[in-house]
Amino acid sequence: MTESRPRRLGVVLFPEFELLDVFGPLEMFGMLKDAVDIVVVAERKGPVTSAQGPQVVAHHDFDDAPRLDLILVPGGFGTRDEAENPRMLDFLARRAGDAEVVMSVCTGTALLACAGLLDGKRATTNKMFFGWVAGQRPQVEWVKEARWVEDGKLVTSSGVSAGIDMSLAVIARLFGAQMSENLAVAAEYDWHRDSTWDPFARIHGLVS
Amino acid sequence: MTESRPRRLGVVLFPEFELLDVFGPLEMFGMLKDAVDIVVVAERKGPVTSAQGPQVVAHHDFDDAPRLDLILVPGGFGTRDEAENPRMLDFLARRAGDAEVVMSVCTGTALLACAGLLDGKRATTNKMFFGWVAGQRPQVEWVKEARWVEDGKLVTSSGVSAGIDMSLAVIARLFGAQMSENLAVAAEYDWHRDSTWDPFARIHGLVS
Repeated sequence: MTESRPRRLGVVLFPEFELLDVFGPLEMFGMLKDAVDIVVVAERKGPVTSAQGPQVVAHHDFDDAPRLDLILVPGGFGTRDEAENPRMLDFLARRAGDAEVVMSVCTGTALLACAGLLDGKRATTNKMFFGWVAGQRPQVEWVKEARWVEDGKLVTSSGVSAGIDMSLAVIARLFGAQMSENLAVAAEYDWHRDSTWDPFARIHGLVS
Repeated sequence: MTESRPRRLGVVLFPEFELLDVFGPLEMFGMLKDAVDIVVVAERKGPVTSAQGPQVVAHHDFDDAPRLDLILVPGGFGTRDEAENPRMLDFLARRAGDAEVVMSVCTGTALLACAGLLDGKRATTNKMFFGWVAGQRPQVEWVKEARWVEDGKLVTSSGVSAGIDMSLAVIARLFGAQMSENLAVAAEYDWHRDSTWDPFARIHGLVS
């Protein structure tokens, strides 16, 4: 049952991506040093500027990105432009087919939806911008109250911090629940193990 | 009481810094767009490689860094080398004097301690590596059970995720408690408002 080849996790960046959407999950996956290799992909190689200002270096563009076993798509204000960027949507649509798990955080779900990957599937997104994301693709079965939603290989999370809980759930699926418990303790993280825990749906008026 | 000039927050990076130590806090401070400017500083300008692999760009080195109102020092395995790097310790010692708040996350506390900034003050750090950090500087009043500790301008947090809670506490001090509540909701973050909440001290055998 052990697998010697590490899984390759590709995080897909774009201008004005949200910092914690990326680095909450990468903190957790990044602790799996021998089991997961992280690569940073963007439409163009080089520094990509986050919504908060700091820049992260993309070492691969859409043409030379290696095969990705795991894909992570963050949210952030940049998703407004990327939801209409055919190069981005085409990259996600093509690469999702080969991937074992495709994850989005926050409004990153809009990109998976616009790429057609969520049609007929259950998915969630940021609760503050739920209306905008859900309006992008009515063919998706949008779940208003959920910390994250797993539908086969597609795993989508609620806003920003929820990506950390989603990542631990995916790590539990791939490497066992004890691994996620160990990582949460190592990062001193108060893990929400229940995917239906979502007080923010109520705060933002999505459920009464 | 309103202040028109934004505060400048400098995050001090080094090779093998821990991703979430940096980007948990920067997510929260980064949402204060008009009130906080973020700058990334390192011993040398250019890409700095994190413990997990991804690279972040430093736009300032120790010689040309502007005046910093707020300073954030992350942890990570790189702190083992940096605790013996006179250039790093000298930079922190010099710049802390001008700063309004100096923060550390995780083993980043070791760098503030080795710079002599915590002598006679209360401080905490990562619970898994508590012994190593505390052993660096017995002149510090080390607090074994705390999510974070505030002693005047010096604010130190426990491991990795604790930096997010510490940041919201500092933001509450600078901008009011309601601001921190708003940011936590915006990031869908389950904020620990109690600085004494620390189950990890027990898990790591520091308290019985």
